[in-house]
Amino acid sequence: MKKLINNPDHVITEMLDGFVAAHEQAVKRLPDTTVITRKDAPVKNKVGIVSGGGSGHEPAHAGYVGEGMLDGAVSGEVFTSPTPDQVFEAIKAVDGGAGVLLIIKNYTGDVMNFEMAAELAEAEGIEVERVIVNDDVAVEDSSFTTGRRGVAGTIFVHKAAGAKAESGASLSDVKKTAEQVIRNVRTMGVALRPCIMPASGEESFELAEDEMEVGIGIHGEPGVEKKPLSAADDITEDLLNKIVPELELNQSDEVAVMVNGMGATPEMELYIMNRKVQEWLAAKGVTVSHTFVGEYMTSLEMTGCSITLLKVDNELKGLLDAPSNAPAFRVRKEK
Amino acid sequence: MKKLINNPDHVITEMLDGFVAAHEQAVKRLPDTTVITRKDAPVKNKVGIVSGGGSGHEPAHAGYVGEGMLDGAVSGEVFTSPTPDQVFEAIKAVDGGAGVLLIIKNYTGDVMNFEMAAELAEAEGIEVERVIVNDDVAVEDSSFTTGRRGVAGTIFVHKAAGAKAESGASLSDVKKTAEQVIRNVRTMGVALRPCIMPASGEESFELAEDEMEVGIGIHGEPGVEKKPLSAADDITEDLLNKIVPELELNQSDEVAVMVNGMGATPEMELYIMNRKVQEWLAAKGVTVSHTFVGEYMTSLEMTGCSITLLKVDNELKGLLDAPSNAPAFRVRKEK
Repeated sequence: MKKLINNPDHVITEMLDGFVAAHEQAVKRLPDTTVITRKDAPVKNKVGIVSGGGSGHEPAHAGYVGEGMLDGAVSGEVFTSPTPDQVFEAIKAVDGGAGVLLIIKNYTGDVMNFEMAAELAEAEGIEVERVIVNDDVAVEDSSFTTGRRGVAGTIFVHKAAGAKAESGASLSDVKKTAEQVIRNVRTMGVALRPCIMPASGEESFELAEDEMEVGIGIHGEPGVEKKPLSAADDITEDLLNKIVPELELNQSDEVAVMVNGMGATPEMELYIMNRKVQEWLAAKGVTVSHTFVGEYMTSLEMTGCSITLLKVDNELKGLLDAPSNAPAFRVRKEK
Repeated sequence: MKKLINNPDHVITEMLDGFVAAHEQAVKRLPDTTVITRKDAPVKNKVGIVSGGGSGHEPAHAGYVGEGMLDGAVSGEVFTSPTPDQVFEAIKAVDGGAGVLLIIKNYTGDVMNFEMAAELAEAEGIEVERVIVNDDVAVEDSSFTTGRRGVAGTIFVHKAAGAKAESGASLSDVKKTAEQVIRNVRTMGVALRPCIMPASGEESFELAEDEMEVGIGIHGEPGVEKKPLSAADDITEDLLNKIVPELELNQSDEVAVMVNGMGATPEMELYIMNRKVQEWLAAKGVTVSHTFVGEYMTSLEMTGCSITLLKVDNELKGLLDAPSNAPAFRVRKEK
């Protein structure tokens, strides 16, 4: 197994140490946990926002902790949900008295463990709300979920809800913003090569040299179908043709675009994909408000990419533009 | 060859189209060239800064074009120097009347072609200065160079010189800042897997499943030696032990750190490396002023990383902190 690691059992804690050392102006780690919070957590009278999930999706989710985005992120083992007690620690650490919103990706383990943590927190008198992100249009159910999976669109939920909370909104209003994003965001991805699990050294699935896996998830689980690898433009069109009907996009609509690398895809290729995304949307008369190209929600060293579209209104556009000092989301508003 | 591309002959122009579509608030493309400039170029009475080189190193160099950093970047074919006429177009496009500084990585082709472009520009009455970056301590000469190669340390030259130019400094003062960075920056890298050239579909070198290539360059050229893959902490120490003597670091010194992924390395692994970098420097009594972890100077989908140290003084620290809207350098000052 070719990885820059020490002991596979220590990858999470060593990664978090290296992360905090790099970003200690913005974040801190709760001692003896895998919880990263804003440096100034808890922020009094502000709604706290917690997300998290298995590790291996970096920069998700700790990279999105900072002013104007998440208050806390909980890291599980690689592709494994964090335990309820860790999530509970995060909720307590970010509760500033205005309640806490949990942003959960739709995976059975995450939903169950975040729910248990919410119950523990409520028993201690902390007001907790939760939203479940399910932006992946590839599959209705998967080996990891009932219903659609939560993937890269989750970053838009973090950003919009985080900006709303920073503006002083109530827990119920922050939740409404998160739900608006969830209703209006859809994603689909493709993989060219699998990732390799640090614990086992095994590849997450098998692909022939001329094959791609369409409709891939972010846990190394197989996608919808294996197909012969085709040209970037054709792949882009295939993904958009699956995403757009789910959003019921019309000519007058405006969208934010994310072209997300799965971990090992050269930036060159992501920009080649983005070129076709923009051309295709322009031809349909859809306006693009924001474009994000890069690695936002990865699967270790999987090769491939996902395309996310978020239908935006003026309020969402403003929330995407709001300042954030989260290490992995530089509010690089473009266009 | 598993890549998200269309025709291998069109990867550069399609990438640049996708890049400009994503970042058109900050940058524009000179028609019929591979030159990306600031949106507002030329900036009157400001020193213009041009860099560039072969493609395949994204986000270098177009990602560093923006206010407070580069005025223009020229992209050659993959791992191939841009032609003198393209560099000449960039110089003309960013000349605001205060002269132009060329930041050149030390490769024989780049040095020759940028030099020819400088002569063309001087013949038209544009004042041009050049600096040559040679931060790679791995080799004294290589298949691509006489003298040390220019690698990830180049980003620090862009940032400091760009901030200096933005402050209104003269061409000679901007050049002095660039030279100060070049004297004080050193890098060394390691590769676990080679990259694959789009034109040929061939791997850039061969490595066995238990081997790494130490002292790798950024063009797929072999490094100093093949060694058995070791633990991340050992690799980190080996790289630092090579870099630090070249900088003559003392206890009272302060450095900026860059842990740079070569293209396909999971962020998890870069942070594990950073953990050891910080621990090692702290043990030596060296203070860290800034830490940058991510993909800054890549080699397509090569797996591996490089470590860069820049010895800083108060002026350089201020220049690293200065605002920049370059898409790939979000002035994420930390620590």
